[in-house]
Amino acid sequence: MSSVKTPQNAEQLRIARITDSGGPLLLACGQSLDVVDIAYETWGKLSPNKDNVVIVCHALTGDQYAGGVNPITDRPAWWPRMIGPGLPIDTNRFFVIATNVLGGCMGSTGPASIGPDGKAWGVRFPTLTIADMVRAQIRLVESLGIDRIFAAIGGSMGGMQVLEWARQWKGRVAAAIPIASAARQSAQNIGFYEVGRQAIMADPDWCEGAYLEAGKRPDRGLAVARMAAHITYVSEEALKQKFDRRLQDRQDFTFGFDADFQIESYLRYQGASFVDRFDANSYLYITRAMDYFDLSTEHEGQLTLAFDGVDARFCVFSFSSDWHYTPEESKAIVRALNAANVEVSYVTIETSKGHDAFLLDEPEFEAAMTGFINATADACGLAAGLVDEHAG
Amino acid sequence: MSSVKTPQNAEQLRIARITDSGGPLLLACGQSLDVVDIAYETWGKLSPNKDNVVIVCHALTGDQYAGGVNPITDRPAWWPRMIGPGLPIDTNRFFVIATNVLGGCMGSTGPASIGPDGKAWGVRFPTLTIADMVRAQIRLVESLGIDRIFAAIGGSMGGMQVLEWARQWKGRVAAAIPIASAARQSAQNIGFYEVGRQAIMADPDWCEGAYLEAGKRPDRGLAVARMAAHITYVSEEALKQKFDRRLQDRQDFTFGFDADFQIESYLRYQGASFVDRFDANSYLYITRAMDYFDLSTEHEGQLTLAFDGVDARFCVFSFSSDWHYTPEESKAIVRALNAANVEVSYVTIETSKGHDAFLLDEPEFEAAMTGFINATADACGLAAGLVDEHAG
Repeated sequence: MSSVKTPQNAEQLRIARITDSGGPLLLACGQSLDVVDIAYETWGKLSPNKDNVVIVCHALTGDQYAGGVNPITDRPAWWPRMIGPGLPIDTNRFFVIATNVLGGCMGSTGPASIGPDGKAWGVRFPTLTIADMVRAQIRLVESLGIDRIFAAIGGSMGGMQVLEWARQWKGRVAAAIPIASAARQSAQNIGFYEVGRQAIMADPDWCEGAYLEAGKRPDRGLAVARMAAHITYVSEEALKQKFDRRLQDRQDFTFGFDADFQIESYLRYQGASFVDRFDANSYLYITRAMDYFDLSTEHEGQLTLAFDGVDARFCVFSFSSDWHYTPEESKAIVRALNAANVEVSYVTIETSKGHDAFLLDEPEFEAAMTGFINATADACGLAAGLVDEHAG
Repeated sequence: MSSVKTPQNAEQLRIARITDSGGPLLLACGQSLDVVDIAYETWGKLSPNKDNVVIVCHALTGDQYAGGVNPITDRPAWWPRMIGPGLPIDTNRFFVIATNVLGGCMGSTGPASIGPDGKAWGVRFPTLTIADMVRAQIRLVESLGIDRIFAAIGGSMGGMQVLEWARQWKGRVAAAIPIASAARQSAQNIGFYEVGRQAIMADPDWCEGAYLEAGKRPDRGLAVARMAAHITYVSEEALKQKFDRRLQDRQDFTFGFDADFQIESYLRYQGASFVDRFDANSYLYITRAMDYFDLSTEHEGQLTLAFDGVDARFCVFSFSSDWHYTPEESKAIVRALNAANVEVSYVTIETSKGHDAFLLDEPEFEAAMTGFINATADACGLAAGLVDEHAG
């Protein structure tokens, strides 16, 4: 059994048992969980009237370590450009909370957690939805004594959570910022994630989901799943710019199956490093939640009806070269919000970087985020910064 | 060891041992093969002056059974709409030859063939290039007493072979028709095929390539490889039209990892049925040959120089929604041919079907093929049909 850098190795993990005060968490599948832990991290300070809370929601393989340095890896967190003093989500002004989603593997309850019978849940864990993840986040926020948030912000699957926040907490979410996301998972995306799931489940070390009990890990299958998904996160143009057909530390083909090309070496590295930080069953559950996501389902395909009564002010972001969650899918959200009389701005960032652009150096994106967040915070009457930061 | 429908089960296989007359086949990797069989199929009749030969080149997972019915499966061959009496490649006029590529698994010598030591080659088989495949095809054609061809036609990897035919047999190829192809494999495509190779090699039943000797088959890995590749053969629009988020024989989610969605069921079927007809090591070798394909490599990136002296008349086809081999990649071929003063027509077919459109019902494509083929044959002075077909 390989060593995985999970919170079991970490000392500073912050976890809230959200079922202690709220009771069992009822899930969309009909089952309920009696014990649910949600791991989270915060930045900044909660204002005296608790009006400056920003929820940051992570994507498929993210976690609660959004800003600054990830204490598990001692490397930059996944959104260090966005969260911090003077950054778009300014921790001098906002109290930022990021959780590890329900079903995740960085301290929140998920399939790797110990179940009621004292053994790891494995695939006996109930299937989750994005709405379930947000229900758990709301419980956490409530447990911190917070009854409204200034903003929910997230990219990719994080954007799906943002949509759910605005729906589940009507009247309590001032601003909603879904980035590079969609209101319904496309057939193509279901297909790519199904490839990943099949790769994991084809690995004999998956052990029908009970690998933890068996002392094994389906690392090979999980690495293949990650490689397949990773290609969708980058535009073809970016792959061409970054790698094209350049060879990896060699002058000519080796005429074999080594990683002759840089793109091969890069993908192999993505796969190999991923298995050190992620649980294969979590990958199954979280991709399944994304597949199941379609806000229009309960409204006979009418997305507009899904936004009925939503009163957050929206800013929807997309990236021109994103083919994983396309600008067209963001526009569908915008059209439905418009039709539902929800205030919405829409920004498409011209970039060649593809889906992962929201994690990368995109000055226009950061500027637009800063502008929308601050203008909305000003309109809401939020203090420009914490008093003690401005004193003296 | 599962039963695989390969030529070992077939009775009517036509095979030529091309090394009998030509001696060992020297490969681009520097190695040579002493014994090479090429399996092939023909339709129509060779004209008395042997001027009506059309070579049809198959794509990654195709074989020599291009027209009519595949005798191994008793189902339609892979290009039945294109090859036959009165069809675009009219077998009343042309003598059509299709081979199974070198490295394939439908009767041609490949990694599943028995090597010099009496054991299956496995990954000891030398690495191949597209140029090697065409060298073997030329040997075959020569062994049939043919010293020029009217046309080379093929889609996807078949189009790469078409480009090689025009380069290797200058003065002997009248028409070249590369369809939905490219002159250099893109980083994105290398990436997708690397995912497939890693899926195969991650399967313990791959046995480091020696699965035939071990009495095993890496079916799970090969199925995942096929699933990943298959998504690239279809446009997102086509997936939406054909499947969208429709459920497979059920009214609601099962909240598990069964194939709830039609797209999942479809991909699983693609994977499961593929392993019945294809050899995993052949998949490694043939995808590698595609990765290595870049006509501009030997000319410092100048594709035009690769077409120096080429005198075939070209018709390059692409499909508007093909993101596996994009219209832009076809245009790059056209631009280079133009710059090299090679006669070339370019046709983009507007379709939502994606890459696989060349295999599907596309009336405009078939009409344009018919028009180009017949006009070029007329210009070459080919008889409009075989004499005995017109007698009486």
